[in-house]
Amino acid sequence: MNSQSVRAAIHIAAIFAIYLSLAMLFPAFFDFYHGNADWQVFALSAFFTGGLSLATALATQGPRIVANARFGFLIVNLLWATTVVVGAVPLIASSIELTIADAIFESTSALTTTGSTVIVGLDSLPPGILLWRSLLNWIGGMGVIVLGLLILPYLNIGGVSYFKLESSDIEDRPFERLSIFLLSILGIYSSLTFACALSYAAAGMSGFDAINHAMATLATGGFSTHDTSFGFYGENLPLLWISSFFMFVGALPFSILALLAFRGRIDAARDPQIRVFALYVLFFALATAIYVTVNTGRPFLSAFTHSMFNFVSIITTTGFASQDYSTWGPFVVACAFIATFLGGCSGSTAGAIKAYRFIILFALMANGLRRLVYPNSVHTVRYGDRPVDDAMQRAVVLFIASFFVIWGVGTVMLAATGLDFVTSTTGVLTAMTNVGPGLGDVIGPAGNFAPLPDAAKWILSLAMLLGRMEILTVLVVFTPFFWRR
Amino acid sequence: MNSQSVRAAIHIAAIFAIYLSLAMLFPAFFDFYHGNADWQVFALSAFFTGGLSLATALATQGPRIVANARFGFLIVNLLWATTVVVGAVPLIASSIELTIADAIFESTSALTTTGSTVIVGLDSLPPGILLWRSLLNWIGGMGVIVLGLLILPYLNIGGVSYFKLESSDIEDRPFERLSIFLLSILGIYSSLTFACALSYAAAGMSGFDAINHAMATLATGGFSTHDTSFGFYGENLPLLWISSFFMFVGALPFSILALLAFRGRIDAARDPQIRVFALYVLFFALATAIYVTVNTGRPFLSAFTHSMFNFVSIITTTGFASQDYSTWGPFVVACAFIATFLGGCSGSTAGAIKAYRFIILFALMANGLRRLVYPNSVHTVRYGDRPVDDAMQRAVVLFIASFFVIWGVGTVMLAATGLDFVTSTTGVLTAMTNVGPGLGDVIGPAGNFAPLPDAAKWILSLAMLLGRMEILTVLVVFTPFFWRR
Repeated sequence: MNSQSVRAAIHIAAIFAIYLSLAMLFPAFFDFYHGNADWQVFALSAFFTGGLSLATALATQGPRIVANARFGFLIVNLLWATTVVVGAVPLIASSIELTIADAIFESTSALTTTGSTVIVGLDSLPPGILLWRSLLNWIGGMGVIVLGLLILPYLNIGGVSYFKLESSDIEDRPFERLSIFLLSILGIYSSLTFACALSYAAAGMSGFDAINHAMATLATGGFSTHDTSFGFYGENLPLLWISSFFMFVGALPFSILALLAFRGRIDAARDPQIRVFALYVLFFALATAIYVTVNTGRPFLSAFTHSMFNFVSIITTTGFASQDYSTWGPFVVACAFIATFLGGCSGSTAGAIKAYRFIILFALMANGLRRLVYPNSVHTVRYGDRPVDDAMQRAVVLFIASFFVIWGVGTVMLAATGLDFVTSTTGVLTAMTNVGPGLGDVIGPAGNFAPLPDAAKWILSLAMLLGRMEILTVLVVFTPFFWRR
Repeated sequence: MNSQSVRAAIHIAAIFAIYLSLAMLFPAFFDFYHGNADWQVFALSAFFTGGLSLATALATQGPRIVANARFGFLIVNLLWATTVVVGAVPLIASSIELTIADAIFESTSALTTTGSTVIVGLDSLPPGILLWRSLLNWIGGMGVIVLGLLILPYLNIGGVSYFKLESSDIEDRPFERLSIFLLSILGIYSSLTFACALSYAAAGMSGFDAINHAMATLATGGFSTHDTSFGFYGENLPLLWISSFFMFVGALPFSILALLAFRGRIDAARDPQIRVFALYVLFFALATAIYVTVNTGRPFLSAFTHSMFNFVSIITTTGFASQDYSTWGPFVVACAFIATFLGGCSGSTAGAIKAYRFIILFALMANGLRRLVYPNSVHTVRYGDRPVDDAMQRAVVLFIASFFVIWGVGTVMLAATGLDFVTSTTGVLTAMTNVGPGLGDVIGPAGNFAPLPDAAKWILSLAMLLGRMEILTVLVVFTPFFWRR
């Protein structure tokens, strides 16, 4: 790693910070329009971080980027770190007076689309702050899509796409240039958000709620404008189905949505990860709905709607809750725990381990078992009908192993801050998977992260970033060989 | 799989069942000598199972064994299943009147050296039953050593030995013939048990307690003759240190103990898994002792002794407890949870994931991270200074992946029987790792498995067997290709 690369990386991060500073003008205008004094906070924050970022960008101009893996890792880490800090500035300065640990946690949770919150009393918060949280969620979601579609595959970490593996697509590229590709993804993301907001409003949400929740839905972020999340809307079943639908769409690979939208390539939906992800969702929603109906006598339609909503929310790593599902019985709690690991599709806004990794892992396991019985048999590990190369196999194993090791270390660290076992272990898990709620009385679906000690908030912020950057991107930067030469 | 192989496997299992039936005569004589009516139970059980086994053995005589991997898998499964059932017979027939689920659970727990019990009121139990439990523990421990040293390496599943990997050892084999090797291992195991019993008696245990606990110690089994386990002896610190020492020895590779004892090969102790295992133990014992001393003001020597004892007990997968360490604070609970995964050395009586797998996994991870930065670099994965071949790497990954998948499935299954989340998830974990106690009010270190529903006991019995046979041995038998042809 040479200083020119570091300089170039800082330059790019500074430019992103300028854009994020400009985004602060939205809540500023909004609060100003509604006669809310907090508009000044956003305007000043925009001026301050924008100016600082501009100065940094100007000071680091010049060096040409040498695009290699190390530069890729550096820039991804720096971008997330920068945007988290910039995103936290208006929260620190605002009238709700969060501590620095709180503000960083909230900003990290927003940008990583985790959706855990340390703010109590969302319903009476100035609208500018609510809008800022949702915007960060939404911007983070877009960042995650770009990360998953463009950067992680380049870094050999992940981001499988059924169509990336198809060699014929190299001649038949759906989009000729990167910027057109990015614009079309942004177009789809925005259109879906708009459609979601309209549907929410049609189902009875206020305009403000609809816009905020739509941004948090497509980003699979999970920030709400109500302390009780979707519980605020009670038994509005159509609303829950609308939300389930758009969360599900947010967890689909956006490259495939682009192929569908712009090329009418229905066959693109054959990507195996979509099928597996849909099966997860259906399995957990049905199993818990039947369990709840049998055990409590609740009408099946209501039980199934709430099961579907809450398990779509967990598996897409959104983190909305329509009820405290942890009171539905131990079976549902265990299902929620397991569902937290799963995640949606690669190249979407979803986090966690993700369906394609499970597909490859199970293919590896079946292969391994077969070779125990027939030691000389050779079987190719496949993803759908395509072979998975060694680098991808290694990346999957490396990711999952790192995931469990870090989960263990994080559990012990959180417990050392004084949190009970269930809060510690599910807290790290829900942070790493960017889901949102954990289990237990404190951080469960009806809880809030506010009561945690500051040390725990820092640990969880780090865990959210680790999970969002698919762990390995961060781990690499902490190895000695990364900085060599 | 052909019927000749199945027949041959049944023949071998029947011969083992005869030996186990003969072992019932020990508690029979013991109860008879002490004028306890239960001697008839053991004598009749021995007669009944011995006779049945003899008949089976005679009926299945004849076919020659074709030693291949499939036959190996079959025989290992059949042997454990048979001994578990035979071991349960006197428990079902005895005066304490256990249900079949209880008796199978207790017998499985004993033979897999797990040490979880469903019997409440151990202190007032007929001595024959206590002796039978300890004997099953001890016999199971010997079985595990043989499995780990001879069978699993042959099946390519595990059982690394530093000296197995050394090619020069093929010329310089420490023991020429299998039977001599087995006898020397049995000699070491018995001598250590005897030494442990003497030490226990010297430190104040009654003779009967000393013998029973010594068998459960070297087997890293963990059955006690008291409901409160080693809590019965209160602050007898020398006793706790003696027990810690022998549990530690029980979790060392017996092939290396043999090299030390019969060849004076001090260098054999350089096996990296021993170092890593010792470091685990020291780390957890020290960390929790300091935590307890700082937080409760308890004298360091007492805190360190109890920490050492309980964490040696968990990491060696013994399962004795000197106190309810789950009341020592959340940090200790999280440490106990993590320690449950670790396990001792390969070729010992310990269970769980085991130190050598972590060594290989971390080498794989370091290698993978390096290749993310330098995609063209090639580094050999090493165990100590020896390269680890592909089959071993694959087996380690396969084992760990299967471990976590089955843990997840088991958690959901246990929760479906109505158990709370902590009991479900730590229950499956402690069963799969053959540790013994879980966490929570029911199955924690001060708890007992008796209150669980029968369905949960069956699931846990299966989990103990899965863990004991290193998972893959069992999984293989449930694949369609195992039974082909």
